[in-house]
Amino acid sequence: MHAQAASPLSTAFPDRLGALAARTEALLERLLSQAPQPGEIARPARLLEAMRHGALGGGKRLRPFLAVEAARLLGQEGDGPLRAGAGVELLHCYSLVHDDLPAMDDDDLRRGRPTVHKAYDEATAILAGDALQTLAFEVMADPETDPDGAVRAELVLGLARAAGLGGMAGGQMLDLAAEGRYGRVDLDEAGIRTLQAMKTGAILAFAVEAGAIIGRADAAARAALLAYGRGLGAAFQIADDILDRESTTEALGKAAGKDAAAGKGTLVDRLGLEGAKREAARLLDATLAALDGFGPEAETLREAARFTVARSS
Amino acid sequence: MHAQAASPLSTAFPDRLGALAARTEALLERLLSQAPQPGEIARPARLLEAMRHGALGGGKRLRPFLAVEAARLLGQEGDGPLRAGAGVELLHCYSLVHDDLPAMDDDDLRRGRPTVHKAYDEATAILAGDALQTLAFEVMADPETDPDGAVRAELVLGLARAAGLGGMAGGQMLDLAAEGRYGRVDLDEAGIRTLQAMKTGAILAFAVEAGAIIGRADAAARAALLAYGRGLGAAFQIADDILDRESTTEALGKAAGKDAAAGKGTLVDRLGLEGAKREAARLLDATLAALDGFGPEAETLREAARFTVARSS
Repeated sequence: MHAQAASPLSTAFPDRLGALAARTEALLERLLSQAPQPGEIARPARLLEAMRHGALGGGKRLRPFLAVEAARLLGQEGDGPLRAGAGVELLHCYSLVHDDLPAMDDDDLRRGRPTVHKAYDEATAILAGDALQTLAFEVMADPETDPDGAVRAELVLGLARAAGLGGMAGGQMLDLAAEGRYGRVDLDEAGIRTLQAMKTGAILAFAVEAGAIIGRADAAARAALLAYGRGLGAAFQIADDILDRESTTEALGKAAGKDAAAGKGTLVDRLGLEGAKREAARLLDATLAALDGFGPEAETLREAARFTVARSS
Repeated sequence: MHAQAASPLSTAFPDRLGALAARTEALLERLLSQAPQPGEIARPARLLEAMRHGALGGGKRLRPFLAVEAARLLGQEGDGPLRAGAGVELLHCYSLVHDDLPAMDDDDLRRGRPTVHKAYDEATAILAGDALQTLAFEVMADPETDPDGAVRAELVLGLARAAGLGGMAGGQMLDLAAEGRYGRVDLDEAGIRTLQAMKTGAILAFAVEAGAIIGRADAAARAALLAYGRGLGAAFQIADDILDRESTTEALGKAAGKDAAAGKGTLVDRLGLEGAKREAARLLDATLAALDGFGPEAETLREAARFTVARSS
């Protein structure tokens, strides 16, 4: 992929991503601690443990990284952007817990560990996903995330739109339909792109937008960051399709080759493996071009895009 | 129940409740229409239909009524309180869709119609519940609900705290545990009250609080309305336990006698049927007393409390 060759991944980037993952983990650990929170009657231990299983101890935490780096680009540092990023991450974790359920993708393994319904049971996993979604919105709306209520409401609204019927949940519905379980479906390339933009792209793009909202981006910066986020989401998904085809279950920490086995169309099917790799490179170039109005201060976001396409798991 | 005898239900009350239910239904119909909303990529028809099945065409809409009447008591009319109430109702509808799932309470019937997983399938019902929860927060955070972002963020935060680990979802976890599925549990009276305060009380109380928030209640009015809401929630649940024991499946529109069959302890078990009825009357008196600082303008909320205890379904 020529974009990657032209600008090799800095060794500093994985360190920065890892450092932010550690900060995210520490914040999620606090949010999911035993300590009762304001207004709570009790914290049932089994549900809390299942939520911790679904949200702690894994993941690259790419979404919080994007939120924090987009806010930093706009001069906003501190815990607010991290909390907004953690809200997006909790929403993402809820979706993984529910997607893994027997009635959905029926996965036993996630990040190399048993999925929540395997470690606990189906009812507990449904409730844990439900409560992780609720917690995502609670974190966004909490005054600790931003002193300005209008900013908090905008974070909630953006997250909800990325997550609901017209975004992630709708994308998962299309994905289940693409397996043919509600009748024969043959998605063309445009249909696959729509599905992926909804299922995974919308939340990734919103992670960047959350940083723009909390960083008080002006209209031009917000439009540029949104274009970057959308491009990144599309590039992420095609990289995922390529990984699913080329990698092993051991390297992924989850079942490999499942999409093909489920009969789901992917862009690798439509474009071929080499065509998909060319398309990933093209999307990466377009994603980087969205940041042309920024200088070297946007280099971390550029590296995040390169990493997204070049990652091996 | 002497409180009821002392102040008989006005015939005007059912009409007012019905009129607000019609307004709520019309708003939910708009929120769940085919028309694409801002920022959405597509509205998958199957998921939208399942959400409509779970949210439209039934229910007393008691929660929106409480939000609207609490706001009206504080001089706040218009669509804002109705939208806040609809947000609470959508959260309630999501919980019903998920509680009915085979892994949870495994109910085939709700409001006299097939539950969502019977009318569609399990995966669709999980996603429909998920997306109804998301929509609840989207409605709360939308500028149409209130012009002040801080008010919208407070609505989101309150709803999330009532719905999550320390509220409704946690209460459902305790309820599943009370069936003995994770080991023998013998709830005493205090344990049953905690479970009920979480599972159903928190959201009912928040419906009243949402009206107080959007009505800009001062500290004294807010404390009084919160006490009213909590009392109402407790009275509602004991009335529900009494109904579950005394009514028929036909009258309820859902399976009757399920709690006893599941081996769950209820306050009727602990107090006996007559003791439970005395306790319901005591809770009703306490709930009405919370409104003593208000004059005749609070009469509708008083009638709502009497209705909650006296209702037959």
